[in-house]
Amino acid sequence: MIQFEVQLGTRGYPIYIGAGLLGEPRYLKEHIRGSRVFVLSNERVAPLYLEAVCRQLEPERVLHLVLPDGEATKSLQTLERVYSCLLEHRCGRDTTLLALGGGVIGDITGFAAATYLRGVDFIQIPTTLLAQVDSSVGGKTGVNHALGKNMIGAFHQPRCVIADLECLHTLEDRELRAGVAEIIKYGLIRDAEFFAWLEDNVEHLLARDAEALTYAVHRSCKNKAEVVAEDELETSGTRALLNLGHTFGHAIETALGYGQWLHGEAVACGMLMAARMSIRLGWLNEEAGERIRALLARAQLPSAPPEALQAESLQEHMARDKKARAGQLHLVLLRDIGQAVLTAEFSASTLKDTLQEFCGA
Amino acid sequence: MIQFEVQLGTRGYPIYIGAGLLGEPRYLKEHIRGSRVFVLSNERVAPLYLEAVCRQLEPERVLHLVLPDGEATKSLQTLERVYSCLLEHRCGRDTTLLALGGGVIGDITGFAAATYLRGVDFIQIPTTLLAQVDSSVGGKTGVNHALGKNMIGAFHQPRCVIADLECLHTLEDRELRAGVAEIIKYGLIRDAEFFAWLEDNVEHLLARDAEALTYAVHRSCKNKAEVVAEDELETSGTRALLNLGHTFGHAIETALGYGQWLHGEAVACGMLMAARMSIRLGWLNEEAGERIRALLARAQLPSAPPEALQAESLQEHMARDKKARAGQLHLVLLRDIGQAVLTAEFSASTLKDTLQEFCGA
Repeated sequence: MIQFEVQLGTRGYPIYIGAGLLGEPRYLKEHIRGSRVFVLSNERVAPLYLEAVCRQLEPERVLHLVLPDGEATKSLQTLERVYSCLLEHRCGRDTTLLALGGGVIGDITGFAAATYLRGVDFIQIPTTLLAQVDSSVGGKTGVNHALGKNMIGAFHQPRCVIADLECLHTLEDRELRAGVAEIIKYGLIRDAEFFAWLEDNVEHLLARDAEALTYAVHRSCKNKAEVVAEDELETSGTRALLNLGHTFGHAIETALGYGQWLHGEAVACGMLMAARMSIRLGWLNEEAGERIRALLARAQLPSAPPEALQAESLQEHMARDKKARAGQLHLVLLRDIGQAVLTAEFSASTLKDTLQEFCGA
Repeated sequence: MIQFEVQLGTRGYPIYIGAGLLGEPRYLKEHIRGSRVFVLSNERVAPLYLEAVCRQLEPERVLHLVLPDGEATKSLQTLERVYSCLLEHRCGRDTTLLALGGGVIGDITGFAAATYLRGVDFIQIPTTLLAQVDSSVGGKTGVNHALGKNMIGAFHQPRCVIADLECLHTLEDRELRAGVAEIIKYGLIRDAEFFAWLEDNVEHLLARDAEALTYAVHRSCKNKAEVVAEDELETSGTRALLNLGHTFGHAIETALGYGQWLHGEAVACGMLMAARMSIRLGWLNEEAGERIRALLARAQLPSAPPEALQAESLQEHMARDKKARAGQLHLVLLRDIGQAVLTAEFSASTLKDTLQEFCGA
């Protein structure tokens, strides 16, 4: 079992990574302070792991709510359902919410915990690769709005993250690949050595090789934890770099309607778009661009938005991005593999040309 | 003009109290950091003051949304409307939300600011006495749920509070009296000298005497700011004392349906119930209880719940209070005038007897 800390002072917490952690009660017990536990999960994950988790805790303390699977669940409507359930069961401030599932469950559980009774504890038990390497760490929580992804949310750090690598064996291939997209992201933005390792090992990840997965989850979480410790609330610009490919990707997700593409798929396509735009600006060389394209292709991730999407529609959705300042869109682009920058130094026409290259319009 | 700080380090901010402050642009300008301003107000306040506020700012920067008046507005449904409006106008993270109204507008604006794009700035311009002396200070934000008041929310401190005493001249008498209830609260929980001053001056407040109002708003805000500085997130128990009368009061408000009674009216009745219960427990003497009853009566505040309410129904609603721990209800009760305690040291039957005394059941 690997253990390390997200260094955030009084809000700091441990990440546990290992196989079979859900069968060991000590991780949960150490981090539950109050009397009640409320587990949120989804229809796909609950049949597999809910019982194992509940077994660690006294039955009279545990409540659970099983939500539909998929990005469409991450809504204000679901949130209202969660609040109602908590209130009907008279859960007080000493309740710990427990997110058992992927990024959607983690985000909505975290936001419910941030806002129920003005804030209660929560614990992340990520069961997808994407959630284990990215969304469960760092305290970004929230829900979507019809007009944009993650537009409503809060920063609320969990009490701990328990990443059981055995959960990855029940993951669909498509979900696994979506997680690999976020792993590749860390290599691209700040860890060129890791990117090179991925070039040697991506097929091992797709084959769910235990050693490769352990290494990749650990190194990804380490990268994430370092960035979060440096810029918890995304004020200095450092944390924004984690959003490489996300402004493009969110636009694809929102324009398509939530749930058509997996988040990691949209991010993969978005990272390729960011790389192409960086090349257009003369910041990234063609060779690096080709390495990025090739690695994403080997991970079997999409390299273009669905044909139905128009460049204009994507540009419209991108304009609503949270990183916009004074109406000016900011994007994470690449100077090199392992070196991302947050920038507004591009013309609208460069962005338009990039989008048209991908949308074929 | 009186100015002083809420001492909260990097989250600290000034409170400005004076007559005619809405006509002076400098307070707003000093505290707006970004490019856009989004004013939330209600149908009663907007016709009176919205233009004066917007006049201080360049017209192209300002958006506004006018909501229905009353407690029923403080809902997740209204919040969704606010988010949609912000997104439709592409408001970015550099938007400042401005709450122009009473406690309902302040609470919902603050919570929208806490959660829109994971947090943007907001400014409080309280226009009711209750909001000026209590709800605009301290960063408690939120909305109601059908199962309980303020059950969904966050701590999010404003950038400043601008209390223009001239706004109080357009207030209905009933609203004014509701504000006086929260003023009396400060005397009861921690400021016996202020309570004595109120015994000498309550009629001056009701007559809207400028000098008396200035003194009472200032001293109330000072009390509130001191408590908030000591216990911002209500973790030590000190801040919970500000909830004297609120557990009883929230139960009345929730049982009646939001909007029947004003919050301050319910709190007044709740403080009397807390005082009677304290006497039953032998903690407060009858003479002090009589002083409390007499002052609330002179302020023309209700001394019993509406006849339709049953003691059982109130007790049911009280059980959902946010201060409950491990299923045990905690109440703010009185040892003396100026000395409140947060306690669970009472029997269910004492609470029941107290409720039955008031409900006449």
